[in-house]
Amino acid sequence: MTSNQTLGAALVGVGRMGQVHLKSMIDSGRLSIRWLVDMPAQHGLMAELIKRHRLTGETEISDIESSQKVLLDPRVDVVIICTPTPSHYDIIKKALTAGKHVMCEKPLTLTVSETKDCYELAKKLKKILFCAYNRRFDKQFNTLYQRYKRGDIGDLRMVKFTSREDGPGKEYLQNNRSGIFLDMAIHDIDYVCWLVGERPSSVCAFGSISSDNSALYRSADDFDCVTAILNFPSGVMANMEDTRAARIGYEQKVEVLGTKGLIQTRNMKASELYSITQNSCQSEALLRSSEERYVDSFPTELNHFINSIEGKEENLVSAESCIIAMEVSEALSQSLRTGSIVRL
Amino acid sequence: MTSNQTLGAALVGVGRMGQVHLKSMIDSGRLSIRWLVDMPAQHGLMAELIKRHRLTGETEISDIESSQKVLLDPRVDVVIICTPTPSHYDIIKKALTAGKHVMCEKPLTLTVSETKDCYELAKKLKKILFCAYNRRFDKQFNTLYQRYKRGDIGDLRMVKFTSREDGPGKEYLQNNRSGIFLDMAIHDIDYVCWLVGERPSSVCAFGSISSDNSALYRSADDFDCVTAILNFPSGVMANMEDTRAARIGYEQKVEVLGTKGLIQTRNMKASELYSITQNSCQSEALLRSSEERYVDSFPTELNHFINSIEGKEENLVSAESCIIAMEVSEALSQSLRTGSIVRL
Amino acid sequence: MTSNQTLGAALVGVGRMGQVHLKSMIDSGRLSIRWLVDMPAQHGLMAELIKRHRLTGETEISDIESSQKVLLDPRVDVVIICTPTPSHYDIIKKALTAGKHVMCEKPLTLTVSETKDCYELAKKLKKILFCAYNRRFDKQFNTLYQRYKRGDIGDLRMVKFTSREDGPGKEYLQNNRSGIFLDMAIHDIDYVCWLVGERPSSVCAFGSISSDNSALYRSADDFDCVTAILNFPSGVMANMEDTRAARIGYEQKVEVLGTKGLIQTRNMKASELYSITQNSCQSEALLRSSEERYVDSFPTELNHFINSIEGKEENLVSAESCIIAMEVSEALSQSLRTGSIVRL
Amino acid sequence: MTSNQTLGAALVGVGRMGQVHLKSMIDSGRLSIRWLVDMPAQHGLMAELIKRHRLTGETEISDIESSQKVLLDPRVDVVIICTPTPSHYDIIKKALTAGKHVMCEKPLTLTVSETKDCYELAKKLKKILFCAYNRRFDKQFNTLYQRYKRGDIGDLRMVKFTSREDGPGKEYLQNNRSGIFLDMAIHDIDYVCWLVGERPSSVCAFGSISSDNSALYRSADDFDCVTAILNFPSGVMANMEDTRAARIGYEQKVEVLGTKGLIQTRNMKASELYSITQNSCQSEALLRSSEERYVDSFPTELNHFINSIEGKEENLVSAESCIIAMEVSEALSQSLRTGSIVRL
Repeated sequence: MTSNQTLGAALVGVGRMGQVHLKSMIDSGRLSIRWLVDMPAQHGLMAELIKRHRLTGETEISDIESSQKVLLDPRVDVVIICTPTPSHYDIIKKALTAGKHVMCEKPLTLTVSETKDCYELAKKLKKILFCAYNRRFDKQFNTLYQRYKRGDIGDLRMVKFTSREDGPGKEYLQNNRSGIFLDMAIHDIDYVCWLVGERPSSVCAFGSISSDNSALYRSADDFDCVTAILNFPSGVMANMEDTRAARIGYEQKVEVLGTKGLIQTRNMKASELYSITQNSCQSEALLRSSEERYVDSFPTELNHFINSIEGKEENLVSAESCIIAMEVSEALSQSLRTGSIVRL
Repeated sequence: MTSNQTLGAALVGVGRMGQVHLKSMIDSGRLSIRWLVDMPAQHGLMAELIKRHRLTGETEISDIESSQKVLLDPRVDVVIICTPTPSHYDIIKKALTAGKHVMCEKPLTLTVSETKDCYELAKKLKKILFCAYNRRFDKQFNTLYQRYKRGDIGDLRMVKFTSREDGPGKEYLQNNRSGIFLDMAIHDIDYVCWLVGERPSSVCAFGSISSDNSALYRSADDFDCVTAILNFPSGVMANMEDTRAARIGYEQKVEVLGTKGLIQTRNMKASELYSITQNSCQSEALLRSSEERYVDSFPTELNHFINSIEGKEENLVSAESCIIAMEVSEALSQSLRTGSIVRL
Repeated sequence: MTSNQTLGAALVGVGRMGQVHLKSMIDSGRLSIRWLVDMPAQHGLMAELIKRHRLTGETEISDIESSQKVLLDPRVDVVIICTPTPSHYDIIKKALTAGKHVMCEKPLTLTVSETKDCYELAKKLKKILFCAYNRRFDKQFNTLYQRYKRGDIGDLRMVKFTSREDGPGKEYLQNNRSGIFLDMAIHDIDYVCWLVGERPSSVCAFGSISSDNSALYRSADDFDCVTAILNFPSGVMANMEDTRAARIGYEQKVEVLGTKGLIQTRNMKASELYSITQNSCQSEALLRSSEERYVDSFPTELNHFINSIEGKEENLVSAESCIIAMEVSEALSQSLRTGSIVRL
Repeated sequence: MTSNQTLGAALVGVGRMGQVHLKSMIDSGRLSIRWLVDMPAQHGLMAELIKRHRLTGETEISDIESSQKVLLDPRVDVVIICTPTPSHYDIIKKALTAGKHVMCEKPLTLTVSETKDCYELAKKLKKILFCAYNRRFDKQFNTLYQRYKRGDIGDLRMVKFTSREDGPGKEYLQNNRSGIFLDMAIHDIDYVCWLVGERPSSVCAFGSISSDNSALYRSADDFDCVTAILNFPSGVMANMEDTRAARIGYEQKVEVLGTKGLIQTRNMKASELYSITQNSCQSEALLRSSEERYVDSFPTELNHFINSIEGKEENLVSAESCIIAMEVSEALSQSLRTGSIVRL
């Protein structure tokens, strides 16, 4: 820990999610932000962020190519990684090896084996490796979990997900090849395995394509709509839908049926305004993006990460659960490709 | 009671509300419907109702001019009155005098003194006189009352009414001169006095006209929108809005704030169907009429009336409460006419 | 058609659903109810129904053993069948052969081949055979269908069902062996195939048991909770959940996502009453039974059946769609038993 | 304007609302925060705020007794006042006289005449004087206004307010003597006059006390619950309820009925989580405070103030509207004290 008792941090990747986390880092009041790190093309943006957030004097800029000097900076205690998924594996390993705690955007890596590698390294070096499954820290999803655990709905029977977004754009599709399971459904997968507390015993999945970008999906062997069933050893069943290019907006619903009751998360809207005409009653449109929808989860998540470093909380996102989520994601892909039920 | 142990009934007035009550009378299975009574012009309608409801052999038709023979029919135990308000007073008195129990549509009469007359007669002759304040029997309004009485919301603080309808038509306005307080707001007045269990100590009211039929309202010294405040001795306050010609449909909301909680009735819609587009979330339009909105209250109300005749329940709508509602209605009219607060 | 231009009807089976349909038959005003037919043990009930509904003189009682005389009665035009499923096949064939139009509760028969038999006979004899998939006539489900058809939500992408009931009881389970697909999920299956307008190309299903009556389900090779995916040739996908013994009450939700919008049916509650305390906002409990939930569908359905006899409407529930629903139901059972995806 | 083209600001008062505005000032990125000013007892708090928000080097601390040096600081362009109401008048006048633009918490002053004084001074010196009626900038209330203005609901008929809070505490009541109209209802008054675009022609008000702090209210000639009616020259009517010590939480509802439709703002809850049990359907509790409820309004309001200084927007809260709100507030107090309808 640095002399002034505040953890020193480096942020690697200042794109969309990087900026979201930077805001939480500043608002937390618990981190000294030592470095912003990204591609040379982002130097202007990084300079602007430093000025905008009154970080002058506190924060330096580094090119990602020279990130070794950042990782070796003794004033840096934690590294927060928001770069594209394919680069995660390498940065995580370097940061851990340099003795830093790591928080990394999901999915941690592209494969089960890489994820296992990372966690083994973290375990060996006794560092926190935290995968940012922010949905676990969302007020609705987190409270649902707490209420189930304290017994409000009895034993679990069915868990049902509906996850929809109006996107992504052509550019994203051209550059991002992790596919709908790793890129989107992984949140549902992680949440349900955490909730049930088991590894599914079998899964099956189906997919379709219907958006304007059909050709891009097809060429990537990807889908813009998938539905799947997960069976758990205890008899709990889950069904999921993940849909991209849903013009209605950003929907993130889970409904959990237990033997004694039901809890569901509900959509958030632009506002609670309500109007009535002769023909209908109307409320406002859905939110449009995950940043708006999950705005409250990011500071909570970051504080949890810092707490787990400081030994105040147990890392909520365990190595085991991250590995399971990757395994299930791979099994679902396999089911879809082979047209068969896959046993895990 | 008639030989076959079923109460014999006569229905006077087979218009809109008469037909609503006829349906309840049939469905109750507790009444032999001896007579339908109305103007000669309604003979055809009455014949059709008898055929439609399989009442042939059970039910006769009478002209209202010859209703004395109906009232003297020993097989008739109860008379249900659904004629225009100005005729109530005369029919109620004749029916009670003939030894019948009476259920009459609200408002019972046009003045406080006539209402007092009727209840004195009923008391003297030991007959049930029941004023059909159906809202007290509505599932929402009745349950609200029960929950307040069992203590769910603590002591009362504020009671707020919003009553709106998309009407009435020109013809109704030309023929009906009881005005917005007696014709519409009387339901709010009756309900709040019943709930609070007190007679208001002071009231004030204001009104406006904005509908297409302004001239008709003005010539009748009436309003299509009124708002009022009622103050009760215990400190409870109520505010009301009654609006006609509300294009959005039929709204009947009350919100009751107590020291421990709040209960409100909510609008009923054409159905629970829900849709989402890019621009809004939509539910169905409001219901359009009191018959649709209060469909459940009419059978409950009739059964209560029969129960009170059979001594199974106390008449829920007491003489006192009917007189108070008339007094408050008159005080509100006076407040509006004089532009001052009226003490009762 | 009978002399007085009203269709003569016989009702076979006066249990729960029989009484629901009897009410619609009376309220329709379009049928002369010639016969009530059931087991000898139901004579008392039938006599009571006749008295209660003022049917004396119009309606006779017959033992089901002597139902041949009912079917040969020339005053009978239509036969409405509400007996247990295993008896349907025989009664349908006899009634059609006797030249009657038939309305029968779902499922029509226990197998695909029996269903085909019935429709072939109806076709040959030019009689209406109407399977009472009442959900198609429910205000919410029917309006959803109409709005999709007129283009409100664009092309279909996902259809999701949640069907739950708090039942059935031990007695029902002991006597009824058609299983959760034929008994409950068939409504979802029928509706989605009608909506999509296609026969699914593949299906898969999973099931679990968790209720108090586990032994009864197990001995019948049945489940109290199933979830399934249906894939349609056009790329539309559907997922379903059907759960018995759901303590929360009666839930019947479908959500349909199209390329332009979403429509969903919503739960109906005991009333719209709403309350707020320091700890939560509360609305009333869910309805508890299908009869309450679908109360509006039964008269609409019966009127449609009569209209289709009178040539005013096309029979909405076609032979093809009934056969497809049976085929899908069988395929889902097979998928569950074999643990594999089934192609149709 | 300061050399670096950013407006220099001084914040006077760093209590509850001062801290809310400080956050907006920082997040706006449009102000250099030159001074925090408050009582000597707040020095520690001010130092902490400077460190917490990375303002070291940018911001100085001043005792309110020496605030003249702040007002004379040429680097200060705007003064934002969040001190208790009685001190507003003096600070506003000094700041304007020193050539600064002023934003001040509501109510601007304690009397109509003081408010007029302030606006005359601002007009003479050509400085912006902005009264922070933040509700006008709330997403719900502001959008409602815009939609009415663009014609969505036709002509106004009724405007109904429900404003409730679970407070204030004993200490606040002991120190704050502006009363429920100036302290709480002024928001309703300002909003309705802005919406209608008229000065009411008559008002009447009633009040009651029922909270634990009855004695404090009584000794201050104040009430914890008031209800009032406002009549506007055009025939529009408004009714209001303002209740303190409402245990259910923070409610801020307005419902606006027009000739073509209705718009209402709705309560905001802790989250959208929803649960169903056998006995009820439940959503989360209401929010508890105005800071939570109106969190979005403060940055919008501040940006509007800066825009109006920079000539990009017209000051939305005009001198006239501030004076009218004060006049109406005084008329309502008079109505309540005298028990009569007050004409303006």
